[in-house]
This record gives sequence, C-alpha cells and structure tokens, in this order.
Amino acid sequence: MMTDFIGGDTGEWEVIRFEVVKGEPLETVSRLQIIHGSSSKMATGLWSLRGFNSNARYTERIEMRKLTVLQQGLNRPAATCAALIPIRKTSGWWELAQDERRAIFEGRSHHTEIGLGYLPAIARKLYHCRDIGEPFDFLTWFEYSPNDSYDFENLVQTLRKSEEWLYVDREIDIRLRKRK
Amino acid sequence: MMTDFIGGDTGEWEVIRFEVVKGEPLETVSRLQIIHGSSSKMATGLWSLRGFNSNARYTERIEMRKLTVLQQGLNRPAATCAALIPIRKTSGWWELAQDERRAIFEGRSHHTEIGLGYLPAIARKLYHCRDIGEPFDFLTWFEYSPNDSYDFENLVQTLRKSEEWLYVDREIDIRLRKRK
Repeated sequence: MMTDFIGGDTGEWEVIRFEVVKGEPLETVSRLQIIHGSSSKMATGLWSLRGFNSNARYTERIEMRKLTVLQQGLNRPAATCAALIPIRKTSGWWELAQDERRAIFEGRSHHTEIGLGYLPAIARKLYHCRDIGEPFDFLTWFEYSPNDSYDFENLVQTLRKSEEWLYVDREIDIRLRKRK
Repeated sequence: MMTDFIGGDTGEWEVIRFEVVKGEPLETVSRLQIIHGSSSKMATGLWSLRGFNSNARYTERIEMRKLTVLQQGLNRPAATCAALIPIRKTSGWWELAQDERRAIFEGRSHHTEIGLGYLPAIARKLYHCRDIGEPFDFLTWFEYSPNDSYDFENLVQTLRKSEEWLYVDREIDIRLRKRK
C-alpha cells in the first residue's frame, strides 16, 4: 500500500521548521497532507513524496522482539508533534552486500538500538521509495508529544553522527505540529 | 526502473510450456512481450506482471564476489531458451526477521550456492513486485542455451525441494523460446 506525503498549503499537519540538511533542496511548504492507499500518485501541492511500508530489511529476531514489546502505534492523542525526514543514500551504499550494510547499520551505527532507547515515546514508521523512481530512498515519519521534542532532537543528532550517515547524500528535515 | 512482462499473443518469446506449480492459476498465453522502463503499467495482453530490479537482500560479500566472477549478462546470442517464474511467499515468510529469512534462504536452503553451481550457463535476473501491489512477490527471469535445458530443470527442481520453498504458496513456471 502506497502513502503520499503532499507538501503545499493544505493538510492537518502544520510545518513549523523546514531544513535542508544535505544535498539538493526541496521547496518549503506551510502544510503537509498525508494520504494512505491512493492508487496513483497525487499531483496536488507543491511536491508529493510517495513510499511504501515493507518487510524488515536489517532487523534480527532479538531486536524485533524488543521493538514489539516497546513500541506503540501512531496517532496517539498526545503525539501532536511529528517529523518527516526524507533521505537518499549514495550508490556506494546500495552496491554493498547485505552483510556489509548490516555491519554499518547496526554493528557500528547501532541504528535500531538507538531508536529502541527512545521507545515508546518516539514512534516511527519507515516508507521505502528508492525502487519506485522517487527522488528519495526513504521517508521516515516520527510522532511524539511536545514534551519529548528535546529527546527527538537528540535521536536525530545521534543518528547523523553515525557511520551510516556517511552514506546519506540528501536529507530534508520537516518538523510538524498537528492542527487542532 | 520497472519491467513489464506481458502475456498474450504477441512478443518475441514463444511460450513452449506453461505450468501452474502451486496456488491460483494464471491464464495460459502463447507469447510473452517484455518492456523495460515503461512509466505506467502496460494494459495490453491477457495479463501483465510488473517488477523492479533492486539491491541484494541476502547476498553477502563473499557470495557477491563469486557471482561477479562467474555470471554473464542476459541477451547472449546462444541463450535462446528462457523461463519466467513468478512466485509468491506466505505472510509467515514476510513476518520473519532478517536473520531468520537469511538462515532459511542460504544457511539451510543454499539458494545462492545452488545458483552459483549453474553459472555462467544459466543467467538469472530477479524482479521484485510485492511492494507495488502485484499478485506475485518475485518474477525470476532465466536465460540459457537449449543444451542447458536439462541442467535448468535440475536447478528448478532442487530449489523446489528446499526449506525455502515451504514458504512459496503460489508459483507459475513459464518456459519460452526466442522467435527467430
């Protein structure tokens, strides 16, 4: 099932910060609309990013068990803050073998382990888009309460300092607030 | 980039055998047409299956090295035989963690190792389609010369006896010959 993230001037999420972290910019917008399960790409708004949720690519059973115990779903009433972080990785990353990518992702960058440390406060959902000709490889969606904003900042900064992030060549960081 | 496999009565590949190995059938056709890089799904023919080539999901560096040394490309003049084998795996497979899938795929079913034994004679290309709402999860395309038909049969039968294949709940086996 595809999900469309549509940047423009409508939608229930208000953009409160829009940062081009690395690489080619994306046009700043004031609102974000999310449409799940559309059959074709939505063309409204200034831009539209599309992705799909998929099976786990690196998560091992022991990590999956911890995630299942700790994580809560999206749409919690108190989680009125959100972030959409589209990233693209280098061709060098994609040419690596599975064991090499896993070694960087978890063995040395501790991606899952770091995220686990912020559960259940910071909920996360990953959308893949490299394989469908989109400008980014992944769209990560986060939801958290205003009280956890500082922790979210720490999470993002910690990941950006990891070895894995050396392979990120484009990143946009869009922070959002749910409209009442 | 998407590739469309269109079953109907046109195309450069003639269907010489069409077998429903497991699960729901697919309508028998006499010809197959392949279109690379189409922007939207092709609607001609009796059916159309669409997939994308992607990064390696299980292959480790040591295997990748062997593959690179041994494999040859598609479209070799002598490779006038082909097979298109669409398969779907169970939801049980997709809920497994990465290490569990790898253990079945290679550790116990030796999927890559078996395929390596048939290189360079039997060339193979994998297309993914589970994530784009297609009826199958994978479309595997094989090319080989008529002299290697017996070996190809062995390869297919060996994989079907593996533990990995316990997770296959739909499989169609379409054998083809290139039209002169």
